[in-house]
Order: sequence, then structure tokens, then C-alpha cells
Amino acid sequence: MSFVSIIMGSKSDYEVMSECAKTLEKFGIKYELIVSSAHRSPDRTKEYVKNAESRGAKVFIAAAGMAAHLAGVVASLTYKPVIGVPMDASLGGLDSLLSTVQMPSGMPVATVAIGKAGAVNSAMLAVQILAINDEGLSKKLKDDKRVKADKVEEDSSKIEVRLT
Amino acid sequence: MSFVSIIMGSKSDYEVMSECAKTLEKFGIKYELIVSSAHRSPDRTKEYVKNAESRGAKVFIAAAGMAAHLAGVVASLTYKPVIGVPMDASLGGLDSLLSTVQMPSGMPVATVAIGKAGAVNSAMLAVQILAINDEGLSKKLKDDKRVKADKVEEDSSKIEVRLT
Amino acid sequence: MSFVSIIMGSKSDYEVMSECAKTLEKFGIKYELIVSSAHRSPDRTKEYVKNAESRGAKVFIAAAGMAAHLAGVVASLTYKPVIGVPMDASLGGLDSLLSTVQMPSGMPVATVAIGKAGAVNSAMLAVQILAINDEGLSKKLKDDKRVKADKVEEDSSKIEVRLT
Amino acid sequence: MSFVSIIMGSKSDYEVMSECAKTLEKFGIKYELIVSSAHRSPDRTKEYVKNAESRGAKVFIAAAGMAAHLAGVVASLTYKPVIGVPMDASLGGLDSLLSTVQMPSGMPVATVAIGKAGAVNSAMLAVQILAINDEGLSKKLKDDKRVKADKVEEDSSKIEVRLT
Amino acid sequence: MSFVSIIMGSKSDYEVMSECAKTLEKFGIKYELIVSSAHRSPDRTKEYVKNAESRGAKVFIAAAGMAAHLAGVVASLTYKPVIGVPMDASLGGLDSLLSTVQMPSGMPVATVAIGKAGAVNSAMLAVQILAINDEGLSKKLKDDKRVKADKVEEDSSKIEVRLT
Amino acid sequence: MSFVSIIMGSKSDYEVMSECAKTLEKFGIKYELIVSSAHRSPDRTKEYVKNAESRGAKVFIAAAGMAAHLAGVVASLTYKPVIGVPMDASLGGLDSLLSTVQMPSGMPVATVAIGKAGAVNSAMLAVQILAINDEGLSKKLKDDKRVKADKVEEDSSKIEVRLT
Amino acid sequence: MSFVSIIMGSKSDYEVMSECAKTLEKFGIKYELIVSSAHRSPDRTKEYVKNAESRGAKVFIAAAGMAAHLAGVVASLTYKPVIGVPMDASLGGLDSLLSTVQMPSGMPVATVAIGKAGAVNSAMLAVQILAINDEGLSKKLKDDKRVKADKVEEDSSKIEVRLT
Amino acid sequence: MSFVSIIMGSKSDYEVMSECAKTLEKFGIKYELIVSSAHRSPDRTKEYVKNAESRGAKVFIAAAGMAAHLAGVVASLTYKPVIGVPMDASLGGLDSLLSTVQMPSGMPVATVAIGKAGAVNSAMLAVQILAINDEGLSKKLKDDKRVKADKVEEDSSKIEVRLT
Repeated sequence: MSFVSIIMGSKSDYEVMSECAKTLEKFGIKYELIVSSAHRSPDRTKEYVKNAESRGAKVFIAAAGMAAHLAGVVASLTYKPVIGVPMDASLGGLDSLLSTVQMPSGMPVATVAIGKAGAVNSAMLAVQILAINDEGLSKKLKDDKRVKADKVEEDSSKIEVRLT
Repeated sequence: MSFVSIIMGSKSDYEVMSECAKTLEKFGIKYELIVSSAHRSPDRTKEYVKNAESRGAKVFIAAAGMAAHLAGVVASLTYKPVIGVPMDASLGGLDSLLSTVQMPSGMPVATVAIGKAGAVNSAMLAVQILAINDEGLSKKLKDDKRVKADKVEEDSSKIEVRLT
Repeated sequence: MSFVSIIMGSKSDYEVMSECAKTLEKFGIKYELIVSSAHRSPDRTKEYVKNAESRGAKVFIAAAGMAAHLAGVVASLTYKPVIGVPMDASLGGLDSLLSTVQMPSGMPVATVAIGKAGAVNSAMLAVQILAINDEGLSKKLKDDKRVKADKVEEDSSKIEVRLT
Repeated sequence: MSFVSIIMGSKSDYEVMSECAKTLEKFGIKYELIVSSAHRSPDRTKEYVKNAESRGAKVFIAAAGMAAHLAGVVASLTYKPVIGVPMDASLGGLDSLLSTVQMPSGMPVATVAIGKAGAVNSAMLAVQILAINDEGLSKKLKDDKRVKADKVEEDSSKIEVRLT
Repeated sequence: MSFVSIIMGSKSDYEVMSECAKTLEKFGIKYELIVSSAHRSPDRTKEYVKNAESRGAKVFIAAAGMAAHLAGVVASLTYKPVIGVPMDASLGGLDSLLSTVQMPSGMPVATVAIGKAGAVNSAMLAVQILAINDEGLSKKLKDDKRVKADKVEEDSSKIEVRLT
Repeated sequence: MSFVSIIMGSKSDYEVMSECAKTLEKFGIKYELIVSSAHRSPDRTKEYVKNAESRGAKVFIAAAGMAAHLAGVVASLTYKPVIGVPMDASLGGLDSLLSTVQMPSGMPVATVAIGKAGAVNSAMLAVQILAINDEGLSKKLKDDKRVKADKVEEDSSKIEVRLT
Repeated sequence: MSFVSIIMGSKSDYEVMSECAKTLEKFGIKYELIVSSAHRSPDRTKEYVKNAESRGAKVFIAAAGMAAHLAGVVASLTYKPVIGVPMDASLGGLDSLLSTVQMPSGMPVATVAIGKAGAVNSAMLAVQILAINDEGLSKKLKDDKRVKADKVEEDSSKIEVRLT
Repeated sequence: MSFVSIIMGSKSDYEVMSECAKTLEKFGIKYELIVSSAHRSPDRTKEYVKNAESRGAKVFIAAAGMAAHLAGVVASLTYKPVIGVPMDASLGGLDSLLSTVQMPSGMPVATVAIGKAGAVNSAMLAVQILAINDEGLSKKLKDDKRVKADKVEEDSSKIEVRLT
């Protein structure tokens, strides 16, 4: 089995991170989604990550706010790529962004944008990673790019002003 | 052929990004490394990315400073994962960090730390991505983790104070 | 034909940028307004900019939020002046401001204030640029300055406290 | 006569702003360069701006650090476009950037990057503005873009790693 | 005659700055209050400051938001102390704070807190300055300090928890 | 008698700081809670701190916003540990965080998170300090950790997605 | 006797603050200068401020770095105007700036620029305050303004480029 | 046995943190000092913390830079108070400060100043915590306060200017 594992530091991150789940579903990617905290449930986090890795997790997505350690802690436990999504729980999310991205040499977290844009982008990045060895998924990404480009045109057509 | 493509926005990023190349070499990953600017040579950037993708680039690493658009521009041109390394050319690198990580919904850049730590981490992340389907590489990552943990002990032994 | 071209990275920027359009209308400047994204529709952006330039666009105005690359991308495609308007989509607009203004040497974007003030100012700046060779427009700018100065007096008169 | 006027808030800005002058010279643009302070010599600033405008200044470039009011003050005195260059005299230049770019509605300053990159870009932007009605200058800008793109290739060739 | 002069950059600053006026009234200080902009009405600002100074203005209070140049411009026009109040119109007021406080050597603006606290404090500071040579006013300040200390006790008594 | 002393700089901090009181109550810790300002009632603050210390205060918790000097002032008056809680009254609480945590060498304030999270954490930290010599309290902390870990599992169970 | 009192939080502030002393000397203002810390020597600070006030201190200047409480503490002890100079000991001085300027309602500190510019400006502001009731001092300020304006011209003449 | 445990995330933190060790020595506090990383050696960190706690560690001090997770990770493993020292490895230490202090509700880290001041203060705070139940240590703290106050006077005497 092959899947993406989504871990949120708190249940309150669910509303934003449901965008991540929806995006994975759109691409037909299997995923797990749990709440586990780097600080309140470190044993659960460790056990889950080790177990998920052995069951086929190919990419981990970790979302947390404030002093967001979750992605870094997951990165210390696995050899798989870890994507970090900074939540905006204070200071506009600047604290969680810096806590997620500024990882020391040798221990990367693939950090995406703060909040909802990051939730979607974490899923897109996971799909891109999985698509490296998956022709079908690559095709879906190509189609998605075209759909997005078309959507821009459609959006524009509703308001655009053209001189002729 | 399968390789990692490293693109720097300016020749002045080379000193820092040579750490990225060295790290890839340590893991036996083939790579290309060029200078191409999102703004000064947009055509070259586009041609190179399209060409590299068709020749087997599996992951792109883009390093730039200030209003760092390079990673975002590369992300707009390929379906492969794009890793962004913010260079510190001004404001401690805060401008390039925000210009790289705050990508809009649907267009991810996997952002790593500012400067030298990010240069190494971009390579480590690329290795992790490629290792998803490569047992040998996975083993090397596992070994590397052990080596790093051992290095911590060794470092500690030189200065540590223990009560008995 | 001579006109100003307004490009927004997203339809959601329209509410703010309609202030730009209104200001151009006040000065009788012809303009085009479209949605095109640096990342989601790079080909459309390139084609539009090249085409608009050939049809008589004298100044480009580009508005985008977050990692705002649009103005920089437009600047890489044209020899005309490019005015960048940072939208406030996150972090109070600090990310889009830095992503717009911190352009590398040789590739300027004329950046104005974040949000609505910037939307108006992008239009005013375009008018100032076009007025360099347009006596009539210069006169309108002069009149506008007087009107604004008078408006300050009028505003003041409603609340001012004077000792005599 | 037609020329660009460069005003610096302090003699200490000269080293950085000489890059602006050199860039204008490269494009054959006539310029004036003076020191005048928004605060220490407001009368001189006013007289100079009014006088320069009447003698043919088409664009003003104002460079200042800290609470950089110079560009805003010049903008209040002229109908010509004003380009602001934030100097880095403290806080990495963040104070002068915000003091220059965050102009209120109706009173634009075309702000470029902090420090040396901004010094060059202020000149490039002035050239772009003047080129709107100058075929010869447009051609020089086109050539300059090509030279810069070629320079990227040349820079790259010294360090690049290509797989064949 | 002796009075304090309050200048606001925009009518929209009035709600906040009415706290300044109220505080001056509480201490029986005569004041003027007008709207005048550093950028939109520079001549009016200059004339008013020169005139107010000659009529007996002892202290100027200038309130403005964004790239807040008003206090600096007033400081360039008078020998009297100028108090700057940064308004929060964007970025939490960080832009107006830096634009007001980071004045270059030799040209001080006495800057107080952002927004409503600053509005009150600008008045308090003006009173302290005027009290240097005014025994009656000094006594009022002393009384005010006691009233404030008593108010703290009173506030506390409503919620405090004491162990006995 | 042994107790924790909570001091707030303003009555408006009470809503947030009641979380601190509730947390202490949950652990059966006696506490006092008063309003006293570093600036408006310095004598009251000094007297209270000296008196509370002599009556058995083991830990002080000081909460204040803006230029938050309260914790530092308390620290200058006592030999007991002082915990500082930065309130968010402006700039997202960045001003009070820096004013509380950046204490000079030799004069520590144990700073916790901005706002409500900090209010709870100040109490938890006080409990941890008091538990060093209190077996019963240590047991409560251990139980609390388990409850929190269980709560994470319970939270997760409501939304989690597991593959089997 | 009438004098200005300069208090520094640390001997290490002396190099910067000697600029303040020199500026006062230039205007013939008598001053005292001592080291006293808000935290390490609160009693000394209180005694000194009370004593200095009674001996004729008309204005206090307080310089400190990091979590700079000194100016606020002095403000809580006196009815005289207190000028705060933020020292750059960390974070470019942003921490000391916010700790000095963001004083709560009713308790002003007249804050000037970070570092050396602020050291000079604190003296200039003190002179402006004392000049309100001192014709001779007013004249010196007027002369100083002219000297500064002349200095700008002189500086400019060494590098200026004029078209004729 | 009773001791303080100092953990550094990297050997490069040693120079700064030796100030912490020296301060503990001055107060006669026994300590251990090791290097262990939250990310590179998570097992070692866990084992050490559990073991140290069981052997008598009363307070933990954790120092780390960048995305500083070490203190938070230690806090998740122990019931003892954890003091966090943000190291300045990038962005002036703002990233490590936010990563250390912004801990979520229920999981405190007692954060002190960035860098060397924080290194000393972490030791002082540990001493204050241990002194709660140690009369002898309390006396040393009292003496230390007097010594520091005397040092201020001594420092001052070398440069002070007094009017008589």
C-alpha cells in the first residue's frame, strides 16, 4: 500500500487542513489523517510515524501553529519527505513559518505557505512527489495545470476590459 | 537518465549552493547545475526547465535572493517537485524566504531554510524524494541518520560535563 | 493607440484594483484590465504582455498578493515601465511588498503602497509617466493637486479648532 | 533640455548612488545630482525641485535612509514621476523602505529595492520611462536586456555542470 | 498667547486624535487642531506652522499613518518641539512608527505609542513640557499621577484575590 | 503559607489571565491576583511585591501589554522566579514579547507565549517549579500529561481517517 | 539650577551617548550623566531621579538596550519630560525601540531614533524643550538650523553635477 | 543528588552557553552539560532527559538556534521546568526566539533573552528556582543583587558627570 500521511498538531487545524485532504482526493491519492501533538503526545507521534512508514506512507504532511515543532519532530523520525504547513494561530503565522522552515543543516522540512494556501499546496507537492514514478498521476497534474490556466481565463472574462 | 537540476539566479549564489552539490555527490545523485535568472534570462530558464524535464530531471532546486521569483517561475513550468532555497542577499534573507514560500494555492514550492543550511537541506530533501522508490538510497539515508546521531555524541564527548 | 495595461494575479484582487481603473478613467486614460497569473497561466501572461506592448501599452500595472511574482515576471517580458501593487492577502501584505520591491539589480519594478492606497497610486504614477509628454495631462495633474489641497482644507474646516 | 534629477538626503548616500549615475551615463541620459535634505534644507529642496522641473527635469530620483521622507517631499512639489531609493542606514533598510513606499492615496513614489540594487534600478526605471517616447532609447533597453541575458549564460558557463 | 498645535494628516485620524484634545482640555491647555497633509497640502502646512509659531504655539503634535512624514516635515519648519503620533493605517502601524521615529541626526521628533495610547501620550508629553515653567500645571500633573495610581487600586479591588 | 502571585498591568488583562488562575486552581495551588502597574502605580507594585514575598509568594507571574515593563520591574524587586506573560494589545503582541523576554544579563524573566496560551503556560510553569519539592504535585503533573495525551487521541478519533 | 539629566542603563552605552553630551555642550546646556539600571539598581535609579528633579533637572534622557525599561521607569518617577534613546544591543535595536516607545496611555516617553542618531536627537529635543522659555537658546537653535542647511549645500558642492 | 541539566543542540552553541555553566558554578550549583539534538539524535535526547530526571535533574536548560525545537522537545519529555535559550544563528535570533517561546497551551518553556544575555539568565533563573527551598542559595542571590547594584555605581563613577 502507498499513501500520504497527514498529521495535525491540534483538532483546531482540521478546518484548514481539510483542504489538503480534498486536494489529495481530487487526485485519487489515498491518505491517513490524524491529530497528534509533538508536545502533548510525543509517544503517539513517534509510534504513528514509525508504524505509518512501515505500512507504506510515502510522504508525511505535518500542520501546526505557533512554535510549530511537529514537522521537525516527524522529520527526525522518518526517512521519507516531510512537508510542513505553518498554521496562523498568532502573529499572522510568522512564528509557525519560521519554526517550520528554519530547520538545521541535514534535516529538511519542505515548507509551504501559511494557512489555507499551504494546506492545498502541501497536497499538490505530495502529488508531484508521488508522480515522479507514476505516469497516470503525471498526466493528472498536466491536466490540472491546464484546468487552472483555463480557470484564469474564465475568471478574467467576467471582469476584463479590452481595447480593440 | 534520472537527475536533480540545480538552478541559481546568480553566479554569486554559487559559493553557498556548492554545499547542495556536495551533498548530492555524497549520496551518489547525478545533478546539473546552471545559472539562469527568472528576470534577466526568462527564455533560457524556460527552455532549460522544459529540456531538463524531458531529459530526466526528477526534482528541481532553485536558489535566489531578494524578491526571489526563480523557484516560483520554475514551478510554473514543470510538473516536477520544485525546492526553493532563499539566499540571504538583504534583510537577513526574510525577503527571499517570503518570496519563495508564500506561493498561492495550487502552485507549491518546497521551501527550506535560508542560506547554507537550506543549501544542504535542499539536497537532502531531493534525496528523500528520490529514495521513495529506491531501496539503496533509502539505506544510505538511514546510514546518514545514524552517522549524524553518532556525530552528535562525538561532538558532545569533547565538551560534555557528566555527574556520576 | 496608447494605453495602460492592468494585470491582476487573481480575480479576488479586482475589488481593490477597481480603484486603479477609476483613477485612470478620471484622467481620461485608456486602459485594459485582465486577470493573468505568473504561475497558473505563464503562457497567457507572456502572450498578453508581448501583444499589449505591440498594440500600444505604454505602462504596465501588476497587482498580486503573497509571493507576488507577477510584476517581476511582467518586467522580464517588456521594456516598458512596470508598476507593482502589493495586495494584502497575508502578513498584512509584507510578503507581497518584499516580493515586489526587492527586485535584483537591472530589473526594476516601480512599487507603490500595499492595498487600496497602492491601487490609486499605481494609476497616479502611470498618469505622471504619460504626462511627461502630454501638456493636457500635465494640466490635469496640476488641477488634481489643487483639488486635493482644497479637499484638505475642506476636510479640516469640519473639525478644526482655531484660536483667535 | 531634458534630464533626470538625482537628489540624495546625505553626502553619505553618494557611494551607493554613484551606481545610479553610472547607469544613466551608460544609456546616455543627462542628469543632475545634488545633496539636499527634506529636513535640514527644506527650502533648498523646494527651490531646487521647482527650478529643475522648469529647466526640464522629466523624472526625479530621491535617495534617503532611516525615516526617509525625501522622496515623499519631492513628490509633494512636482507633477513629474518620483522614484524613491531606500538606503540601508539602520534596520537593514526596512525603515527607509516603509517610509518611502507606503505613501498615502493619490501621492505615489515609485519605490525600488533597498541599497545598491535600488540605485541601479532607479536609473533603469527612469530610462524605461523616458524611452516611452524615444525609439533610440527603446532600442538600447532591448540591447541591454540581451546583454544581460548573455551575461547570465557567460556567468553560468564558468561553473555549470551539465550531464550529456 | 500660548498653545499646543495639533496637526493631523487626514480627517480620518480625528477619531483617535480627539483623545489628545480631550486630554489637553483636562489640563486646561489651549490648543488648535487642524487637518493638513505633508504631501497633499505642503504649502498650507508650511504657512500654518510658521503662523502658529509666531502666534504662540509652544509645542506641535503631528499625527499621520503609513509613510508618516508629517511630523518630520513640521520639525523641518519650526524650532519648537514636535511630538509625532504614529497612526495604525496599515501593518499594525509599524510603517508609521518607523517613518516617525527614525529621524536623522539633528532633527528630532518626540515619538509616542501607536494609535490611541499615543494620542493620549502626545497630550501628556505636551503638558509635561509646558509644566517645566508652570507651577500650577506641575501640580495638576502630580494630582493626575495620584489619580491614576488610585484608579489602579480601584480597578484591582473589583477583581483581586487576596490570601490572608 | 506558600502561594503564587499574579500581577496584571491593567484590569483589561483579566479576561485572558483568568485562564492562569483557573489552571492554578486545577492543581490546587493557592494564588493572589491583583492589578498593579509598573508605571502608574510603581510604589504599590514595590510594596506589594516585597510584602507578598515576605508572606510566602514563591513565584510571581506578571502580565502586561505594549512596552511591557511589569515583569522586569517585579524581577528587579524580588529573588523569586518571575514569569512574564506578554499580552497582545498592539502589533500582535510582538512589542510586549520583546519587552518581556529581552532582559539584560543577570536579570531573567521566564517568558511564555503571547496571550491566552501564555496565560495557561505561566500557571503550568509555576506548578512545575513548585513541584520540584512536592511529590503530590509532581504526580498531578504526570496525570495531567497523560490526560492531555489522551485528549489528543480523543480529539483525533472524531475526525481521523485510517487506512486498514 | 537648571540642567538635563542623562541616565544610561549600562556603561557600554557611553560611547554612543557621549554624542548626546557633546550636543548639549554645543548649546551650553548643563547636564549630569550617570549609569543606573532599571533592573540592577532600581533604588539608585529612584533616588537619583527624585533627587535630580529636586535639584533642578528639567528634562531626563534615558538610554538603554534590549528590553529597555529605563525610560519607562524614569517616567513613572517624575513629572518632567522623559526622552528615551533605544540602543542597538540586539535585533538591530527593534526590541529596545518597541520597549521604549509603546508606553501605555497616560505615561509618555518621547522616543527618538535608534543609536547614534537618537543620541544626538535626544539632546536636540531637550534643547528645543528648554528653548520654549529661553530667547537665547531659541536663537542658537535658529542658527543651528541655518548652519545645518549651509552644511548640506557645502556637502553637495563637493559632488554635485549640474547642467547649465 | 540535585543538579541542573544543560543541553545544547549543537557544539557550536558551546561558546555562548559556557556563560551559563560559569554562572551556575558561581552559585555552587552542580550541573551536567551535553550536546544532543532534537532532530539529529532524538533517541539520545529522550534517553538522556529521562535518565537525568531520574538521577536528580531539577531544571533543564535547552539552547538551540534557527527552528529551535530542543526546549519544546525536552518539555514534552519531563515534568521539570524547562528553560529555553534562543541562539542567534540567523535572522538575529528572531526565528529561534519565536520557535522557543510560542509554545502551545499547557506545555511551557521558560524563555530567556537571545544569545549571551540569555545564557547567563537561564542560569540565574535556574538558581532562583532552586533557591525557593534553599535558604543558603537565597542569601547568595541577595548578595548577588547587591554586588550587581554596587557594580552599577562603580561603572558609573568612571564616567559620570555630576553638577554640585
